[in-house]
Amino acid sequence: MSNALTPSAFRRLVRSGHFTGQTAGQCPGYTQGNLAILPAAYADEFLRFCRRNPKSCPVIGMTEVGQSSVPELGPDIDLRSDVPGYCVFRDGRPAGEVSNLHQLWRDDLVGFVIGCSLSFEEALVEGDVPVRHLEQGTTVPMYTTDRPNRPAGRFAGNGVVSMRPMSAAQAIRAIQITSRFPSTHGAPVHLGDPAQIGIADLDRPDFGEPAVVGPGEIPVFWACGVTPQQAIRSAGVPFAITHRPGHMLVTDIRNSHLAVF
Amino acid sequence: MSNALTPSAFRRLVRSGHFTGQTAGQCPGYTQGNLAILPAAYADEFLRFCRRNPKSCPVIGMTEVGQSSVPELGPDIDLRSDVPGYCVFRDGRPAGEVSNLHQLWRDDLVGFVIGCSLSFEEALVEGDVPVRHLEQGTTVPMYTTDRPNRPAGRFAGNGVVSMRPMSAAQAIRAIQITSRFPSTHGAPVHLGDPAQIGIADLDRPDFGEPAVVGPGEIPVFWACGVTPQQAIRSAGVPFAITHRPGHMLVTDIRNSHLAVF
Repeated sequence: MSNALTPSAFRRLVRSGHFTGQTAGQCPGYTQGNLAILPAAYADEFLRFCRRNPKSCPVIGMTEVGQSSVPELGPDIDLRSDVPGYCVFRDGRPAGEVSNLHQLWRDDLVGFVIGCSLSFEEALVEGDVPVRHLEQGTTVPMYTTDRPNRPAGRFAGNGVVSMRPMSAAQAIRAIQITSRFPSTHGAPVHLGDPAQIGIADLDRPDFGEPAVVGPGEIPVFWACGVTPQQAIRSAGVPFAITHRPGHMLVTDIRNSHLAVF
Repeated sequence: MSNALTPSAFRRLVRSGHFTGQTAGQCPGYTQGNLAILPAAYADEFLRFCRRNPKSCPVIGMTEVGQSSVPELGPDIDLRSDVPGYCVFRDGRPAGEVSNLHQLWRDDLVGFVIGCSLSFEEALVEGDVPVRHLEQGTTVPMYTTDRPNRPAGRFAGNGVVSMRPMSAAQAIRAIQITSRFPSTHGAPVHLGDPAQIGIADLDRPDFGEPAVVGPGEIPVFWACGVTPQQAIRSAGVPFAITHRPGHMLVTDIRNSHLAVF
């Protein structure tokens, strides 16, 4: 960790186009965030949606209308350029990927930065709780549940969860560890029987890749940052931008600073 | 709660022989403790056993050799009379029950007070996590597991757990709540499949009475204060005294004071 780039130096690398990859493992100890950018006409409603669904949508930063800076997360952050990859949505449908937003930025956009699971996964690994998809080198499996989000205006949809298999003792420890981080999804929302939350087949995730559930292990489910993205899509927002999956905003906030105790 | 006796007043009632029942529900908000009294020749070893098995044996009070007072738990406590019922063991075997220790007390005895689950059950109920055996009006089911205690001298044996059935979401909340109380057994030690900890049949507890596990519920297991009692028995201690099951020492310590955060 001693040779790792500072978040500011890493963002300069991204901003200049010299880093276009996934951000897992970059700037260890610092919080990474999901990105959602919406027109102001939807922003208040979206914020209300996030507030009503805080486990899925913990807002850790927000811009002023038309501004691309988020000083609360880093004095130099520019959301137009500091994420290594962006997805564009028009009328709720995917409309391509771009490497920066210089051509697409508008004066009516509002950016939201939402806590993500990379923060608590770091704490799990430090706590000797194995994280299967990291061991496998795959993307965490994610599932759309049958549990409706609490709606706000045009934003609704069902909750999406990520799943990590572990032993019962590890699950108890993982609940303790992740409870310290309510702004990065916090404690699990479910464990054990997937059918209880509407998941038919763990081997067929809706997003990501399967994770092997070993003998004597149970699946443990956390609220997932894909939830707000799905809400944006299902709301049919005319224009929206998110980060490319795995291509997060690296902030100046230390994970340890987000811990509530 | 406003009309409840103070712990000191309740102990006077016990001391005078006017209360001989179980202590659950007495002095709400105050910590109750398991009692173990041993000859000094065994006390240091027993304390080491407790230290090595802190989830089962959280020592919250201890007397000086030959003393029956525990000022750290209440200035007037007298372990010879302030528990509503005692069990006597000779050479590890039950040797009767008595209502006080005035005839049995010896100058070489050391008393241990060990945190018990009544404290965290109060927190669970306050947290809207149902406690099945309280709803049923039965004694919590307890099971001897196949997990050996960490031995210390002559004290060893397997861990004993208590079980409370609940939904997955309630189990997650229960882990958060009980993690705050490490001196009253703390977080669960297991959840889900009983066979993983050597329990063959939930309907046949080794102590207490069965608790109904409803559809969609999982059993959640906590370390149990019967563990030290079993260790005392299996060590064949020539003379020992414990509280009668359910007949605890009521202390001046508030449960909230034991919470670590």
